[in-house]
Amino acid sequence: MSVTAARGFEASGVVAGLKSTGLPDVALVVNRGPSSAAAAVFTSNRAKANPVLWSQQVLADGVARAVVLNSGGANCFTGSFGFQTTHSTAEAVADALEIGAGDVVVCSTGLIGTGDQAFRDKVLAGSRAAALALAPDGGRDAASAIMTTDTHPKEAVVQGDGWSVGGMAKGAGMLAPGLATMLVVLTTDADLPAAALDRALRQATRVTFDRLDSDGCMSTNDTVVLLASGASGVAPAEADFAAAVTELCADLARQLQGDAEGASHDITVEVVNAVSEQDAVEVGRSLARSNLLMAAVFGNDPNWGRVLAAIGTTQAEFDPYDVDVSFNGVRLCAKGAPDRPVTEVDMTPRALHILLDLHAGSETATILTNDLTHDYVHENSAYSS
Amino acid sequence: MSVTAARGFEASGVVAGLKSTGLPDVALVVNRGPSSAAAAVFTSNRAKANPVLWSQQVLADGVARAVVLNSGGANCFTGSFGFQTTHSTAEAVADALEIGAGDVVVCSTGLIGTGDQAFRDKVLAGSRAAALALAPDGGRDAASAIMTTDTHPKEAVVQGDGWSVGGMAKGAGMLAPGLATMLVVLTTDADLPAAALDRALRQATRVTFDRLDSDGCMSTNDTVVLLASGASGVAPAEADFAAAVTELCADLARQLQGDAEGASHDITVEVVNAVSEQDAVEVGRSLARSNLLMAAVFGNDPNWGRVLAAIGTTQAEFDPYDVDVSFNGVRLCAKGAPDRPVTEVDMTPRALHILLDLHAGSETATILTNDLTHDYVHENSAYSS
Repeated sequence: MSVTAARGFEASGVVAGLKSTGLPDVALVVNRGPSSAAAAVFTSNRAKANPVLWSQQVLADGVARAVVLNSGGANCFTGSFGFQTTHSTAEAVADALEIGAGDVVVCSTGLIGTGDQAFRDKVLAGSRAAALALAPDGGRDAASAIMTTDTHPKEAVVQGDGWSVGGMAKGAGMLAPGLATMLVVLTTDADLPAAALDRALRQATRVTFDRLDSDGCMSTNDTVVLLASGASGVAPAEADFAAAVTELCADLARQLQGDAEGASHDITVEVVNAVSEQDAVEVGRSLARSNLLMAAVFGNDPNWGRVLAAIGTTQAEFDPYDVDVSFNGVRLCAKGAPDRPVTEVDMTPRALHILLDLHAGSETATILTNDLTHDYVHENSAYSS
Repeated sequence: MSVTAARGFEASGVVAGLKSTGLPDVALVVNRGPSSAAAAVFTSNRAKANPVLWSQQVLADGVARAVVLNSGGANCFTGSFGFQTTHSTAEAVADALEIGAGDVVVCSTGLIGTGDQAFRDKVLAGSRAAALALAPDGGRDAASAIMTTDTHPKEAVVQGDGWSVGGMAKGAGMLAPGLATMLVVLTTDADLPAAALDRALRQATRVTFDRLDSDGCMSTNDTVVLLASGASGVAPAEADFAAAVTELCADLARQLQGDAEGASHDITVEVVNAVSEQDAVEVGRSLARSNLLMAAVFGNDPNWGRVLAAIGTTQAEFDPYDVDVSFNGVRLCAKGAPDRPVTEVDMTPRALHILLDLHAGSETATILTNDLTHDYVHENSAYSS
């Protein structure tokens, strides 16, 4: 149900001919109200796609009534023609729903540089068809239509006291800090103003999607949008709401990690006893960014030397000769010297837990990442995105 | 001839049993004088190996008489026992040559965490054997003994006016900014003081080894050392000497790039019209660090969209919508929009030239890198280093 789990929402997913596979490729999520409060976060990449440039303006007033999403083309670096395509897409949806185009968020994903007249024609026709296909149980259709190299739709729901929040996500590669190549739509029937939604969303993404770093690459199109219908008539405490949104985003982030392109390990890097949370994040991320370490994990090699070589490149406050490194509960390095034999570590499960004790402070952070595999190289050399 | 091309030097390479292949694995380079001026640069990784910690102290007074190098073990994160091994190695060489241990540079390469009693015994015996095997034409033997995953020894010589400078290098992976996993010994018979050698070496490495970024990973053991014998009796102008050292380092850097682990393309990223040289370096490096782009290159896909997505993550001063991108002379993107069709680019040669015109200033920089291939993943998952 995902985006249609909360009251006040309808959704759809239709075939617009953008995907060569003939699978659904345009999705629409509509907020029927009574509230139309909304918030969003976007890629921190300076190279932003046209839909991001457009949607940032849509969200400026904290109001959005619909989100239209297409796969099969990122509409990024497509010139002024591409921006006009995004604008026309919002207008097509607005006309069909009898709302203003300035309340329509647009998201696109696919190959950068794709956005010619044929693309525009298909997106516009698909948007109109999606408006006609809207249904109160259309969440799964929408979640399927936004898939690119994803192997399955990603949905989750968290129940509050008299209200709920649900969501869908796409993105199986290019996962990086400041958001992944990832489109996420969250919907809630809680009745909260846009400013509260914004605070909850930023709090949630900071510790979930922003700490998912599959391959260090950052997309041009990342968008996470939260729509509130207020249809429950319930105004939850902000802390409760933020906790639910965080739980929801954590669930979706784990689903994205588990479906990362070509990955054979889902890696949880836990950094403890750092001087600051920022230090812990930087140290954890340096592991996620080390091709040498991530290739070793693919080979089931618990290469703690590559861990230390990676963290030595950071600015974080710690002594490299006072660090403990554990793989799946086995401490292989204590205070910068060999400890237990590497043969004690079982690297065969898909889940891998790397624990780094910096012995420098009391702060902690967890980064989610994936290994570097033959399949990652294959998918990203054979598939243009 | 490499390190024995200049007058006043002897070298050797011997089998110490550190490599499982039985190939030579301990090298020695000795400066017979009359001068013993020296300079060096080391990894900027905070996780420094014992030989680096030792050799930094050796070079503090600008004097070095010998460099002993072993493959088959990095002697990094091996505790105080490991540091003692480095110290003993310098003493073994010093005793054999009747010089002070404080004038012996030690370099190691191989698996981090390797440095037990058996390792120490082999390194010490190998160092003594290497001293007995010294020869005026031993350069090639030394260059061979420092190889790890290198497929061939790397040597170069540049002739000055009455003097020369030559060198050897190892390192076929982990090439990264702030030096690669790379051991380089340069020798000259020019008669220059340590301060002049230091200036020339830093000037040369800044624009050569520091701009070679194969996989973004930085080693714990990188060392580039320059020894001057003064045996020519010629004191060249500093500018001439620095130019020769730069030419030599550029030659060796290209050899390292051409032998990078598993690579199928040697990529020259040329960034022009940047506001500053630092901006140009940052932009060029962002391409070298993009796994998505480097996998696309492996697949012969001139994916200019991934170029723009990569540079958008930098702090450099430019407008992403005012950038031109060319692959092998074909401009695929002009001012952030598609230009020539990608089918016009021939990606099959090993050499690839990516030109980025930022249209922001007048500074330029060139970064050397390699693509991300199945073989890279294979070598770095199967081989522990």
